[in-house]
This record gives sequence, structure tokens and C-alpha cells, in this order.
Amino acid sequence: MPKLAGVIIAKTIEEAVKKIKLHEADLYELRVDYLESMENIELLLPHSNKLIVTVRKVEEGGAKRIEEQERLKLFEKFAKIKPAYFDVELYSNIVEDVINLSSKIGSKVILSYHNFSKTPSYQTLQSILDSMIELEPDIIKIVTYARDFRDNIEVIKLYENSENLIAFCMGEKGKISRIFSALYSPFTYVSIDNSVAPGQFTVGEMRKILELLGETK
Amino acid sequence: MPKLAGVIIAKTIEEAVKKIKLHEADLYELRVDYLESMENIELLLPHSNKLIVTVRKVEEGGAKRIEEQERLKLFEKFAKIKPAYFDVELYSNIVEDVINLSSKIGSKVILSYHNFSKTPSYQTLQSILDSMIELEPDIIKIVTYARDFRDNIEVIKLYENSENLIAFCMGEKGKISRIFSALYSPFTYVSIDNSVAPGQFTVGEMRKILELLGETK
Repeated sequence: MPKLAGVIIAKTIEEAVKKIKLHEADLYELRVDYLESMENIELLLPHSNKLIVTVRKVEEGGAKRIEEQERLKLFEKFAKIKPAYFDVELYSNIVEDVINLSSKIGSKVILSYHNFSKTPSYQTLQSILDSMIELEPDIIKIVTYARDFRDNIEVIKLYENSENLIAFCMGEKGKISRIFSALYSPFTYVSIDNSVAPGQFTVGEMRKILELLGETK
Repeated sequence: MPKLAGVIIAKTIEEAVKKIKLHEADLYELRVDYLESMENIELLLPHSNKLIVTVRKVEEGGAKRIEEQERLKLFEKFAKIKPAYFDVELYSNIVEDVINLSSKIGSKVILSYHNFSKTPSYQTLQSILDSMIELEPDIIKIVTYARDFRDNIEVIKLYENSENLIAFCMGEKGKISRIFSALYSPFTYVSIDNSVAPGQFTVGEMRKILELLGETK
């Protein structure tokens, strides 16, 4: 059965842990950029092997502006619980610092690129992907916005020569590529309550679709 | 809401009409190659505006071998009820005869290509599609077999520069492209009882998937 990562939006660690306990995803992405308190991070320890720690840049959909060095400090704070993954954007000044931090503590790296306004051409996306490959992350995540259904095709083409790729389009017109990602990515992202990104399925909806696709093994 | 064509497999016209009445598809493909009696074709008249008449060649999945001239006679028999569509294979000796027959009686033409063993490369498929375009059909149908998930990508790419295209992969690994077709083709094919082609959804399954995709308008 394809793996699903539930996106955790919470103000406190306690609220995040509560949400993790309430749901049945395979992984959980903790959006640190939404947190208002960093108290009691150790409460996440029992769930660290399922955790993706993301401090999303505001330019790529983050909840608020956080200076790069401040973002790096937050990653270092969460390094204490050794999460399964760190997610850092290709286009960020701290990308190499986070990659080094991850390898030091044995966490994996998701190298990500988000375009919330459109879907660049396949050629542009492939060149972004190629530059991401050079940094040798564990997983590459490319998420764009679908203005037209054909945008799905631009993104789906990326799967042709890539492994460990999570690539899909946001938006109502991009939903088909989210299913493609659920089937052919290491895992894909779903919402567990109020969806974070446009076009996002809930865990339940995605599980139903996958069942109808015969993906129950 | 995307349109669905239910595939009718029956031995007699009476049985076919009964199946049409029992179901809720938007269109019905009558597989004449499965019929054992051609009696009472006129019983189909009330449904002719929803009917696709197909006399499938055995080399492209037909139920039995029917000589080309015999196939043409069958098309001519069904011309009496002026079905919405005739479906004829690009690679058949009677393709132009059926196209002419259709335009004479005001039916539309689905020009089709089926590969039940594999999915040729995108380049090969695009050249097949280009030669189909030259015959100026109303709809082009390209159906191949998915041995690997990436075969879906080869077929999905065809949608990039084509309109009025029904293209998907058969087989368990091709299901995602059937959903793509449901969303972006004029209509797509579903089974109404014992599925005809590998990986085919039933009307009910496809409607559920489309609903989950927000396609209820």
C-alpha cells in the first residue's frame, strides 16, 4: 500500500502530538513554521521515526517569514529528536547546512522546490531536478501549481527517469498528479484536517482512491 | 461530469438492449464481434444516440476472426440505426469505407489503435496519432498495455498537443491513465459487468473516483 504523509499544522508540540496520535498516516510532516512555541520537543521522540521536520520558507508557502539563520537554529533544535527526514528547499542559503546536519545525526533529506503560482515547462523542471540530484538528497520533492490540466503532464514526465521523486501539482486541476505521486513516489502528502495546500486529499480520501485502484496489498 | 461509455458484451440484440436499460452510462459501446445473432437491430433505435458500434478486429482484441468485407457488411447493417459513433481500426483494410459510410449517414468516427501486448515509445505512438489525424476522425482512441508504470507516462504525453483523444493503458499498472482519460478525453470506457479489458473500472468505481477528484459538477 502506498505511503502517505499527513501534514501537521499546530501551534504547540502538544497539539502536534495529539494530532499524530489521532491519525493513521504512515509519516507526519511537522510544519515548524506554523508552531508558535518550541517547548517540549522531546514529546515527539516516540514518533520521530515517522517525522518529517519542515521549516518552510515563506517564499515557498511558509506560514511566516523566518530568517535563514533562525530557520537553521530551528532545524538544529529538532536534530535532538533525530527525525526520519529534514525537508529543506533547494533555493535556500542554508540548504548545505541542513544536509550536513542531517548526515551528522543520521536523518534523511528531502530536497524540495515549490511553485505556488504556476507550473514551469518540463525542461525547466528537469533542470531544477538535475541540480537537486547534484546535492544527493534521499528524496526530491517538486510541487508546482496547475493552472491547466496539461500542467500535470509536465510534472508527470519527471517520473520517467527519476527514482525517489515526489512530484505533483497543487490546485483543483492538479489532483490527478497527486494520485500519480501516491502510486509512484516513496510517499505523498495528504492533509489530516484542514488542508494546507490547494487540491490536497485527506488521508481517508486518498486511501479510498488507492483502494479503487486496487492498491490494497 | 466526465462521460463514461459502458462496454456491452452480449450474444443477442435483445440481451444488449436489456443491459443498456439496466445501466447508467452516458454512452454504450456495442461490441458486435461478440454478437451471435444480428436479428432485431431496430430494437436499438431508441438508444442509437448513445451507441458506439464496434466490430473489433481479432488482432486488436476482437472476440473472433471476421473477414474484412464481412466486417464492412456488419457496419452497413448497423448504419440503418444511425449510431452516434462507428469505431474502426486505423490498421484495417476497410477504414476508409467505414469513414465514408459514417459521413454518408451522419454518424461520427472513432479511429482506434489497440496494442494488447505492450506500450510502444511515445515517439512511435505520436507518429501513429499523426497518421490517424490525417484521416480526420472525430475522435482518436489509442489503447496500449502497461507492463511498467512508466508506460502510463508515454501515453499521457499524447494529451499534450491533442484534442478529442482517448488514450490510456490497459492492465493493472495502467489504471492511473484510465483516470487521466476519464478527466481529459471526450469520454472513456468502463465495464458494466464482466470487464472486457484488463484493468477496466466499472461505471460505479469510476464514478466514485471522479467524485473523490471533485468531478461532480
